[in-house]
Amino acid sequence: MLTLADPLEHARRIHGDRIAVVDGETRMTYRALHERCERLAGALQHLGVGRGDRVAVLAANGHRYVEATCALPAYGMVVVPLNTRLAEPELRAILADCGARVLLADRDPGALRQCVDRVVSMPDDYEAMLAGRAIPRRFAVDENDPAALFYTGGTTGKSKGVILTHRNLVANAFHKVVACSLDASDVFLAAPPMFHVAGVAPLVGLVWNGARSVTVPSFDADKCLDVIERERITVFMPVPTMLASLVARQQAAARDVSSLRMLGHAGAPIANALIEAAHATFPSSEIAQFYGATETSSIVTCFRHEEAAIGTPRLGSCGRAVAGVSVRVVRPDGIECPPGEAGEIAVRGPNVTAGYWHDPAATSAALVDGWYRTGDVGVMDADGFLFVVDRIKDMIVSGAENVYSIEVEDILYRHPAVIEAAVFGVPDDRWGEAVYAIVVVERRAPSEDDFVAELKEHCRRSIAGYKVPKRIEVRTEPLPKSGPGKVLKRVLRHAHWEGRRS
Amino acid sequence: MLTLADPLEHARRIHGDRIAVVDGETRMTYRALHERCERLAGALQHLGVGRGDRVAVLAANGHRYVEATCALPAYGMVVVPLNTRLAEPELRAILADCGARVLLADRDPGALRQCVDRVVSMPDDYEAMLAGRAIPRRFAVDENDPAALFYTGGTTGKSKGVILTHRNLVANAFHKVVACSLDASDVFLAAPPMFHVAGVAPLVGLVWNGARSVTVPSFDADKCLDVIERERITVFMPVPTMLASLVARQQAAARDVSSLRMLGHAGAPIANALIEAAHATFPSSEIAQFYGATETSSIVTCFRHEEAAIGTPRLGSCGRAVAGVSVRVVRPDGIECPPGEAGEIAVRGPNVTAGYWHDPAATSAALVDGWYRTGDVGVMDADGFLFVVDRIKDMIVSGAENVYSIEVEDILYRHPAVIEAAVFGVPDDRWGEAVYAIVVVERRAPSEDDFVAELKEHCRRSIAGYKVPKRIEVRTEPLPKSGPGKVLKRVLRHAHWEGRRS
Repeated sequence: MLTLADPLEHARRIHGDRIAVVDGETRMTYRALHERCERLAGALQHLGVGRGDRVAVLAANGHRYVEATCALPAYGMVVVPLNTRLAEPELRAILADCGARVLLADRDPGALRQCVDRVVSMPDDYEAMLAGRAIPRRFAVDENDPAALFYTGGTTGKSKGVILTHRNLVANAFHKVVACSLDASDVFLAAPPMFHVAGVAPLVGLVWNGARSVTVPSFDADKCLDVIERERITVFMPVPTMLASLVARQQAAARDVSSLRMLGHAGAPIANALIEAAHATFPSSEIAQFYGATETSSIVTCFRHEEAAIGTPRLGSCGRAVAGVSVRVVRPDGIECPPGEAGEIAVRGPNVTAGYWHDPAATSAALVDGWYRTGDVGVMDADGFLFVVDRIKDMIVSGAENVYSIEVEDILYRHPAVIEAAVFGVPDDRWGEAVYAIVVVERRAPSEDDFVAELKEHCRRSIAGYKVPKRIEVRTEPLPKSGPGKVLKRVLRHAHWEGRRS
Repeated sequence: MLTLADPLEHARRIHGDRIAVVDGETRMTYRALHERCERLAGALQHLGVGRGDRVAVLAANGHRYVEATCALPAYGMVVVPLNTRLAEPELRAILADCGARVLLADRDPGALRQCVDRVVSMPDDYEAMLAGRAIPRRFAVDENDPAALFYTGGTTGKSKGVILTHRNLVANAFHKVVACSLDASDVFLAAPPMFHVAGVAPLVGLVWNGARSVTVPSFDADKCLDVIERERITVFMPVPTMLASLVARQQAAARDVSSLRMLGHAGAPIANALIEAAHATFPSSEIAQFYGATETSSIVTCFRHEEAAIGTPRLGSCGRAVAGVSVRVVRPDGIECPPGEAGEIAVRGPNVTAGYWHDPAATSAALVDGWYRTGDVGVMDADGFLFVVDRIKDMIVSGAENVYSIEVEDILYRHPAVIEAAVFGVPDDRWGEAVYAIVVVERRAPSEDDFVAELKEHCRRSIAGYKVPKRIEVRTEPLPKSGPGKVLKRVLRHAHWEGRRS
């Protein structure tokens, strides 16, 4: 069967002269990409990295990120893309959990040096290694071997490594190519961070079809618009916050964006007004919505030509199952809900994760009879359109990053003045949801502003900036609780969400 | 993972109101197709057909053929499409080999009745069964379970059942959809016989994408052209002999064929002049060439827009590996040949057969280290374009039917007057290749015409009409042989092929 060695080899043979990656002034053919991948794998093998060994990447998007994600799995290693927004203790925990041998980093890794055998700095060490022209050995890789680990925040507060196998990512590539009608003529803007599965998984389908990826180190609306114009981008899949900036900046200073054929958003709820504005601002492009998860290698449902649904109730949907993936809304016992009844969204297909790294308990909780239980609450209509209405997992989606309440609450509880803490998402025009905290203290501090600032700083020392509550409300009376003593977070959230889609 | 139950269920949910099949006056939505498939499966289960049991189909193309090929695997049964051109002894051998419980037949099965528990006549018994509205049970089907058996002529003279699993056919569907850019707007002309894998495998991808199949009972160029006009056919994949008739009839009486976007030919060598004529006659359509085998669930390589290569040496190629399938030209030891060197064409991918039905020796001969050895000799150029130059297996491709020389020779040897026999293909404008035989006799018969007629009749009693030699040459001197006594068929063929692509 096939592994991620196959798309790369296919592209070298069939699309060798086509441009694979554009990164600023660097333009690289598939033949050149293949050769750099070989050298990278050879150099890492020379460092002692073998089949199944983990290699972490801490970097902004760029051609070297493309090389690492193509090369490592192709030669039997496991790539572990690290979220650059995480705080050092979080990254240390991930490196310890996955046991990475090597870290490729485009920034000073600080104390992370102690977590791995070797840090390869990018570009310096990296380019020196490639200049060595080492020839890699081919390992016998099985399609069910892990190709990548993506760490996601866990409901227990501990980050979990989602195992995506070769087969998962190969299947996802075909699902995405078919769902998005990708072909060799496509030019894909790789602006969303490649440390998320949605940022990096599209590469497999693009490579297989000889399409082109244009990387930008990070999202900046004006720079992206310039790149869209210059490189004649056809497909861009931003998160809603990016899409909103893109619309605003294009309205402020129009670029030639006529090459765009698809703006596909995913990862977070989107305002209907934004879909309308995006359609008006990028008239050559369809607007498409996707739904997926790290555990499903990304794409599960898709809503093509969402702009045609403007003014209809269907606009709130994230679309229908793509070919190759089965989606059901189920009751807790796994029986499918009839159309219109809310239940948990469950997903089955060759794209579904093999499980969590060294965490059989979490794996068996998430994978039930071959179905991945997403933790999202959804409703499906009679035509198969899925609506995501709530989350079972206590998770906040802020700027397309997942924040697990319990992880933030855990940090707040560690502050000596905090007796109770409840963290949840509140509507936010910029971020979709903002992290909001209510803490209960014995007695109020002399200055509440100083106390709140101190709490935020307390959080910032342990968790990523995007997880730190944007606002903290201080109370002295106990939080409302259910019979068994569980905080009634739904009651707390309600005041903030009344009259809005939650 | 997925089985063939999934595309059918997906189509019911997502494409329920779309037209799935058009067969004459019958127009059936995906919802209706799904319901008829359920009833068929329920009725067969009621007859005692269970998981893994074989059900054979002997019929012309039509909506019931579509139903049977969709329904049986979806409910865990194995469909065995029978070549309607085979002679009764050949069909008996196949039914005995696969142990079919039930035969669905649109014609009098004659003595085949004795080979199965039950014959279901189409349409009468079949429609009566569906009217019973039996509800089928769902079996737990694994993706590696056999979904279909396709019998092909064997080099040993014995027909072998190629096992195609659920996974094989699901993978092939994605490969084909991507290679041919199939989508929901496509209208596919199902004129090539559905008892061949190339005739029936496209259904899976069409169903998954909610596209439409238009069946015609058998190929007739004028009727097909009328259907192309009336049903606005977009994709047709004829064998070269069909394409030649189509060109001739369209030139004789022009129909509106502007809906056609792809004419894809496969299954046999094609004359360059025919590619040119097809392009001139069907200007809206690209001409595409495919290469594949029953053992690879069909598509392996594809040459899109072949018409753009007219006048270049590349026109003789059958194209390049499609995404998802690996193709190599190898030496006998399995080492890949450098570009330009002839070797055996080998194929790897999730579309490759699990093996031959109850024939481990043939399976291990054909599948070597995960590669299917096609028996075809090919050359690959530096850009990955494959040229099929010869066949290792002593096989003749006549009108896209495979004829194994040894099987025909075996029959000839059974005639008392025949001392030696050699059967091979000679160029034929209508059939691509025609079956040609040389027989050696002790002394010539009084009338050679009568003797040749007698020999042909002798063959016709045991093998399909298309396998009976079109011409028989009678000699009295021994055939040229190699040292070990093997007939030098290459020498015999040479006289017929000199100056032509063989």
